[in-house]
Amino acid sequence: MVGLARNRAVLVPAVAKHLRPAAAATSPAAAATATTGFRGVRCVSTKNPHLEQMDMDFLYHLGLSSGDTAPDGREKLEELFGDVKFFCCGGSAGRMTQFAHDVAQHFEGTEHELPFGAAPVPLGKQDRYSFFKVGPVLISSHGMGQPSVSILLHEIAKLLEHAKAKDVTFLRLGSSGGVGVEPGTVVVSTGGVNGMVEPVYSLPVLGKMEHLPAIINPEVVEEILSATGAQAANLGFPVVPGKTMSADCFYEGQGRLDGAICDYQESDKMDFLNRLHEYGVRNIEMEAAQFASFTHRLNIRSCIMCVTLLNRLDGDQVLSPVETLMEYDLRPGKAAIAYMNAQLGL
Amino acid sequence: MVGLARNRAVLVPAVAKHLRPAAAATSPAAAATATTGFRGVRCVSTKNPHLEQMDMDFLYHLGLSSGDTAPDGREKLEELFGDVKFFCCGGSAGRMTQFAHDVAQHFEGTEHELPFGAAPVPLGKQDRYSFFKVGPVLISSHGMGQPSVSILLHEIAKLLEHAKAKDVTFLRLGSSGGVGVEPGTVVVSTGGVNGMVEPVYSLPVLGKMEHLPAIINPEVVEEILSATGAQAANLGFPVVPGKTMSADCFYEGQGRLDGAICDYQESDKMDFLNRLHEYGVRNIEMEAAQFASFTHRLNIRSCIMCVTLLNRLDGDQVLSPVETLMEYDLRPGKAAIAYMNAQLGL
Repeated sequence: MVGLARNRAVLVPAVAKHLRPAAAATSPAAAATATTGFRGVRCVSTKNPHLEQMDMDFLYHLGLSSGDTAPDGREKLEELFGDVKFFCCGGSAGRMTQFAHDVAQHFEGTEHELPFGAAPVPLGKQDRYSFFKVGPVLISSHGMGQPSVSILLHEIAKLLEHAKAKDVTFLRLGSSGGVGVEPGTVVVSTGGVNGMVEPVYSLPVLGKMEHLPAIINPEVVEEILSATGAQAANLGFPVVPGKTMSADCFYEGQGRLDGAICDYQESDKMDFLNRLHEYGVRNIEMEAAQFASFTHRLNIRSCIMCVTLLNRLDGDQVLSPVETLMEYDLRPGKAAIAYMNAQLGL
Repeated sequence: MVGLARNRAVLVPAVAKHLRPAAAATSPAAAATATTGFRGVRCVSTKNPHLEQMDMDFLYHLGLSSGDTAPDGREKLEELFGDVKFFCCGGSAGRMTQFAHDVAQHFEGTEHELPFGAAPVPLGKQDRYSFFKVGPVLISSHGMGQPSVSILLHEIAKLLEHAKAKDVTFLRLGSSGGVGVEPGTVVVSTGGVNGMVEPVYSLPVLGKMEHLPAIINPEVVEEILSATGAQAANLGFPVVPGKTMSADCFYEGQGRLDGAICDYQESDKMDFLNRLHEYGVRNIEMEAAQFASFTHRLNIRSCIMCVTLLNRLDGDQVLSPVETLMEYDLRPGKAAIAYMNAQLGL
């Protein structure tokens, strides 16, 4: 394991227990980072003292193990993954496979270029997630919903700790329903909101409900808006900040009228969507609150960039032509590449 | 849409609103069904009056539409899917693909046999779910977690309503962590339990928490235990009834000590697992409570059969040899085939 101190969190009630000091966003060091990019000092570090007592860590859903590469074990993981600077994930296996190839193409002519005749191939088990590495960028699908992305994030955080990766930024690239924004807009999440319209991710742990603050580092939001703003003409689509509501259901949980079960009326739905809009929510998806809370707890820089496939204030079904949706699907990846470009100085 | 009455649920508070009369399990008709198999009278029927007003229904995550096959539209869906009697789903795409081939092989020599030289192929979009039809059996992967399976169930219920499919039984075939049972045991769920150890699935709808009873029809449990009991020598593994806890997290949500974050001790975990065991829980996974509550609301016969990959009272990591785990993974499918065999009279 990485030799950093992992102090066990002091048990105090409810939300306060999971809040870490806001120093990262406001300290002079953080302010400097906002302009200079990487700090080059912070390893990905888990918060679990029990891990130090384990001889081997089997990352079950990735199909990777710290013991697979024995006798050198974790040193091998460091060799393979120690240079990772970005972890990019999204729901669909097909879209993330495409993104891995897009990143590889983007790296042509740079120090991260793959040799002629080589292309990214999926790593690990491939049964639960489609998982790639392209230079300093780790890429994976995460399936649909907060529980699915949660498993991935636990195992990726452990992997990157074993690998002693430093100053890694986690990005979720997804699709979503817009709330008062034009279809095709990329929303950069400024924070996550749960289905009760609270800025937390709520998870039962040992039979007790934990409310974990779904906080996004504002410095990362600013960096993304700056990088995509500088490339606005090339990108050709709007990128806006806004809160993101994460539902645990695509139909009832998002107030849709077109699920197999619906106990409410159009007016109830519109009241709810308007309430979300007034709260600052600009899109609805199914992962951001968990993603924000998890990375906040581990002090990992992160953000969520989702394209909106429709404006929910206008309807529920996704009815744009397939070609339009396919082009929309590429937009979060294009925005992420613009951001990574700026951060990597390419 | 199917011409059955869809009365809008009367809005009464909390759980009671979602409870339907227990008649299905206790009426003489139901008692007869327990011995005679299919009733042959009940179409899959959604509970959403808004669907009747839609000209076309696009099942977005399946990649199927009631309008794709225009001008005959829903009649085409009836032709393609009207004979479905079982819907079998499980988390992993690879495992459900294998299961589709196993079912096809099992149907050799019966009326459902595929022509020589033919094999099941994935249907629809394939990007979110791997989806097959083999004779009267619809098969799909559902990804990991309750939100992911929820999307699938909404769209499958709508599909089967459009297709006027009758007397369909929904089965989830999965893997799980056992609680006080030997690894390799198949647990037939008698009910779902949420992470707060309550017999409900809790879902925010329009900003209000709904607690949906996670009830399994006991008649289906009995039928499965009977069919697998009759095949016990052939199957060669234990099949036991028990409650199933569905967590929204593989690590903290299941009291594991090996996640990236863990704020509790071994003794806290054991207290929780023992509490679950006393409550009648025999396995923990991530979908059963939603699956049970959804099918209960639509009065769809259903059950969950999961193999246990480990006994959580003994540890957290899944460390059995790969060959052992691969054999375990086949067990829920074998139990399901034994059950379908009995029900189809093959």
